[in-house]
Amino acid sequence: MTSLSIHALPGIPEIVPGADLASIVAAAVERAGLALRAADVLVIAQKAVSKAEGRFVDLRTVVPDAESLRLAAVTGKDPRLVHVIRGESVAVLRARANVLITRHRLGFVMAQAGVDRSNVPGTEMALLLPSDPDASAARLRESLISRGIPPVGVIVSDSFGRPWRVGTTNVALGAAGVASAWDRRGDRDREGRTLQVTIVAWADAIAAAAGLAMGEGPEGTPVVLVRGLACPAAASPASALIRPTAEDLFT
Amino acid sequence: MTSLSIHALPGIPEIVPGADLASIVAAAVERAGLALRAADVLVIAQKAVSKAEGRFVDLRTVVPDAESLRLAAVTGKDPRLVHVIRGESVAVLRARANVLITRHRLGFVMAQAGVDRSNVPGTEMALLLPSDPDASAARLRESLISRGIPPVGVIVSDSFGRPWRVGTTNVALGAAGVASAWDRRGDRDREGRTLQVTIVAWADAIAAAAGLAMGEGPEGTPVVLVRGLACPAAASPASALIRPTAEDLFT
Repeated sequence: MTSLSIHALPGIPEIVPGADLASIVAAAVERAGLALRAADVLVIAQKAVSKAEGRFVDLRTVVPDAESLRLAAVTGKDPRLVHVIRGESVAVLRARANVLITRHRLGFVMAQAGVDRSNVPGTEMALLLPSDPDASAARLRESLISRGIPPVGVIVSDSFGRPWRVGTTNVALGAAGVASAWDRRGDRDREGRTLQVTIVAWADAIAAAAGLAMGEGPEGTPVVLVRGLACPAAASPASALIRPTAEDLFT
Repeated sequence: MTSLSIHALPGIPEIVPGADLASIVAAAVERAGLALRAADVLVIAQKAVSKAEGRFVDLRTVVPDAESLRLAAVTGKDPRLVHVIRGESVAVLRARANVLITRHRLGFVMAQAGVDRSNVPGTEMALLLPSDPDASAARLRESLISRGIPPVGVIVSDSFGRPWRVGTTNVALGAAGVASAWDRRGDRDREGRTLQVTIVAWADAIAAAAGLAMGEGPEGTPVVLVRGLACPAAASPASALIRPTAEDLFT
């Protein structure tokens, strides 16, 4: 019988630029009394990774151009924040009151190109996505392995809205050592018919599951351990989950 | 520390029209040695619910009209199946080779309005979504309660594609006794800032998590138990997760 367990790892300190995520994660796992196993997957919130990578932009240094001022007026957002979002984006897809949806330079279609106002008190900072979330995941994985930890999977997750559904779920921005897309084309169902589902967004489902334990508010923790996953597919980066622009039917 | 567990419930028989899902689920839970608790959530695949509700259409009785023939030529799909899909839909959003995305009469934007070819051997059947998945979930929940089982949550799940991402994840078509949308507007994060995430698609995340244990192929089972969820929001139906058409930015 397939059984999974999902464990929030509490006690993670505020992450500062240059923080050694592998040490922090390893310590949290140890505190939780959960020795890592090779098939485990660690899910870490994008914000924690971005902070460790120092992906801050000081909004006081940003001078918005005319187009950023225009989009700021449309959306009601800070013109400097809009300018930073545009700098992270290859296209603005929708701009409405309180809504600015763009295609991030890495291909993610998401609100604000993933740019958050930082919650460092007393500053005016924006926090960008990691420059390469798949590489971030791979670095964390390798750093854990170099500490003698078994080769776990690592997913960098973020919350995404969806066009026709209310609310956000977590998806995988980056992944290493875990299947992101599980291609089931040609597989059969229990009655021997070819499966109608062809590709399972495995890493997105893991990220969504981790979100159930990660939380968003004061109860939250940025690192979650998922144990018991069974997927025969080879590891693939989360970039495999980005639909090529040529196949986009909806922008 | 938040810890969840997710248990596939094996040994579910092929579901036939009129099947008593509550008996089947209760037996599977008992076989698995997992006495249900009030905060548990059972996730059941849409196909099983639809079969129990007899939501079959015999394709040999379907006479496609001119528009169905046209869309069948565009998509390469069986004209009779296309006709059934149109009958379940209020709008055809995209039709391309192998792609037919519609707005289902209940508001779901999804491939084929959720209509599958049935895998009953020797027949030519299409299987529709339950007529009211929230009601299906509520009936199953009440039927379990009437057997003396604690008031668990019930989610009816299905796999959905996503416009800008590859692959499918499971979402909640119906729900009872569990929060579908968790409205966090006004909540604060760990640093006291207002949360940027405003509504969490809680039931969709539970469905996605259950999908990790449910499987799609011969290893699959249509019923999964999720234990350990902590959400302070009141129960809401899965229809709360359908974005109103007036707020749709992408069709």
